[in-house]
Amino acid sequence: MTASTPPLPLALSMGEPAGIGAEITLKAWLKRDDDGVPPFFIIADAGHLAVDAAALDLGVPLVRIAEPAAAIAAFARGLPVLHRPLPHMPVPGRPQAATAPSVVKAIEEAVRLTQAGQAAAVVTNPIHKKVLLGAGFPFPGHTEFLASLAGGDAHAVMMLAGPSLRVVPVSVHVSLAQAIAGLSAAAIVAAGQATAQALAQDFGIARPRLAIAGLNPHAGEEGAMGSDEQDLIAPAVAVLQAAGIEAFGPVPPDALFTPLARTGYDAAICMYHDQALIPLKALDFDRAVNVTLGLPFVRTSPDHGTAFDIAGKGLASPASLIAALKMAAAIADRRRAGQQR
Amino acid sequence: MTASTPPLPLALSMGEPAGIGAEITLKAWLKRDDDGVPPFFIIADAGHLAVDAAALDLGVPLVRIAEPAAAIAAFARGLPVLHRPLPHMPVPGRPQAATAPSVVKAIEEAVRLTQAGQAAAVVTNPIHKKVLLGAGFPFPGHTEFLASLAGGDAHAVMMLAGPSLRVVPVSVHVSLAQAIAGLSAAAIVAAGQATAQALAQDFGIARPRLAIAGLNPHAGEEGAMGSDEQDLIAPAVAVLQAAGIEAFGPVPPDALFTPLARTGYDAAICMYHDQALIPLKALDFDRAVNVTLGLPFVRTSPDHGTAFDIAGKGLASPASLIAALKMAAAIADRRRAGQQR
Repeated sequence: MTASTPPLPLALSMGEPAGIGAEITLKAWLKRDDDGVPPFFIIADAGHLAVDAAALDLGVPLVRIAEPAAAIAAFARGLPVLHRPLPHMPVPGRPQAATAPSVVKAIEEAVRLTQAGQAAAVVTNPIHKKVLLGAGFPFPGHTEFLASLAGGDAHAVMMLAGPSLRVVPVSVHVSLAQAIAGLSAAAIVAAGQATAQALAQDFGIARPRLAIAGLNPHAGEEGAMGSDEQDLIAPAVAVLQAAGIEAFGPVPPDALFTPLARTGYDAAICMYHDQALIPLKALDFDRAVNVTLGLPFVRTSPDHGTAFDIAGKGLASPASLIAALKMAAAIADRRRAGQQR
Repeated sequence: MTASTPPLPLALSMGEPAGIGAEITLKAWLKRDDDGVPPFFIIADAGHLAVDAAALDLGVPLVRIAEPAAAIAAFARGLPVLHRPLPHMPVPGRPQAATAPSVVKAIEEAVRLTQAGQAAAVVTNPIHKKVLLGAGFPFPGHTEFLASLAGGDAHAVMMLAGPSLRVVPVSVHVSLAQAIAGLSAAAIVAAGQATAQALAQDFGIARPRLAIAGLNPHAGEEGAMGSDEQDLIAPAVAVLQAAGIEAFGPVPPDALFTPLARTGYDAAICMYHDQALIPLKALDFDRAVNVTLGLPFVRTSPDHGTAFDIAGKGLASPASLIAALKMAAAIADRRRAGQQR
């Protein structure tokens, strides 16, 4: 036997404590053996987790750990918690500004521990943007915050990956009119390049195939219903191809997600949020993972939100969080293997 | 036994003769017994059908009929054809302006025969808009042409209906920017009313439930990413509700098509073409039917186009045309039963 680096646990952030984060975390731990969930620890208030476990009748022992290294051994006995107390107990479904700083700090700490080599990857529970914005958090979402934590050079790109489909939207949290107005060949090229690189490095796809979606119905039908395809998208496809990337398009958006079409590419580059998220959630809801590409550390999250409507009711499914934990571990392993080569 | 009106055949238009229309029509007739295809006749060039049948090795006897009434008896022996000669033989994949007038006339005749009580419903094979536009056809598509044939009062609305989902886009063949700029509460209300009426009258759903989609990501998230939901869509939902229609929304677009969400409504009213067509084709490709609501006659068509890339190759599936023929017959029967009540 050769000496090897000890395995590292995943760092999971608490997310919005009034949402379903604690519940799905407890349920994910319970499924650790059946579903092959890799060892992780959560950065959260252990008291809140205990209250939730009791309220939902989930028999999950909590193991307070002082540092991530203890999580691997602790994981077999209970859910490892890096205890960070909240100013007061959250109420399910009612986000409060007072807990917002703890939500942000848990993400920062997960990133710090991962960058320091104490955790394998960052996995984040869902946050509620509005309450964070109200508490002075100047980012539209996780992705932008993580890019800032990674430093100025990071061009972070969101990919949603499910069993049926991988999609990368060129823009995310802006109105549809702004997404159209802000669309540029440069943004499409940047998303395509980040995606091609990540599919090769993190997903082990040697020669990734990228489908580039059109923006307009029928991809504009040769200019009859919009010229964005001719003006921006086709030139971006040409740039990607010239860079040696196997890209094709612009593809009529409604033709891109049929069962047959999906066999022809490894990821679809989409021109706006819902062009990507509608087919992904129609086909892979609760099984898809949000992966941030282009960061120096690995980060995934479930593809759903805080689900205030079912918070505290015991109805939340841990499936997407489990998929996020497994994908984070797989990507981290692949990156580590790549570095050791 | 009581006397009853004799059954009527469906009138099928030839569609673009350089596309897959003839092929899927011949294949639909071959599946008449297995798939329970209702009797229909095609308005087309019998010589072209014979050439296609021979080229594709499809053993389909053609029965020239002089009038629709003969189609019912003829259907058991072969494909009934109301022969309308083309100026020359079409070339698969190469639409030509010379045949465009015949394409248009076949649609007109199908409508005329249906309105005269000689056919039960109009079913149309796919057309190629560009070649018709070039030949002076002033409509962006079938739906608008049919509305004009029906007379000035018709407010025609396109519904796509598949096994998983029914969707109605508020706008169709305009650029995405124009779809946003042209969105109005009045258009949403009109689409909702036509849909609710059609679901009750033509689909036998006594109290239809309509989900009204948002336009922006997360339905604007309370104005953070667009205000169309607050300005136009929520008011339209209120108008529909006040009219006694069970409507709800605006729903975040990416949350509207998950398996669970789809159990909550009978049709989704969508704010633009691809918001409707992306999930429909992802889930129900080749099984969905295009139904025109709001016309005085019944009209359906397959949910795909002319498929020039596979024309003449024998690869086309008749599944969507068969679904369109069956749905047309079912709606016509339901309307007739309603009239006899």
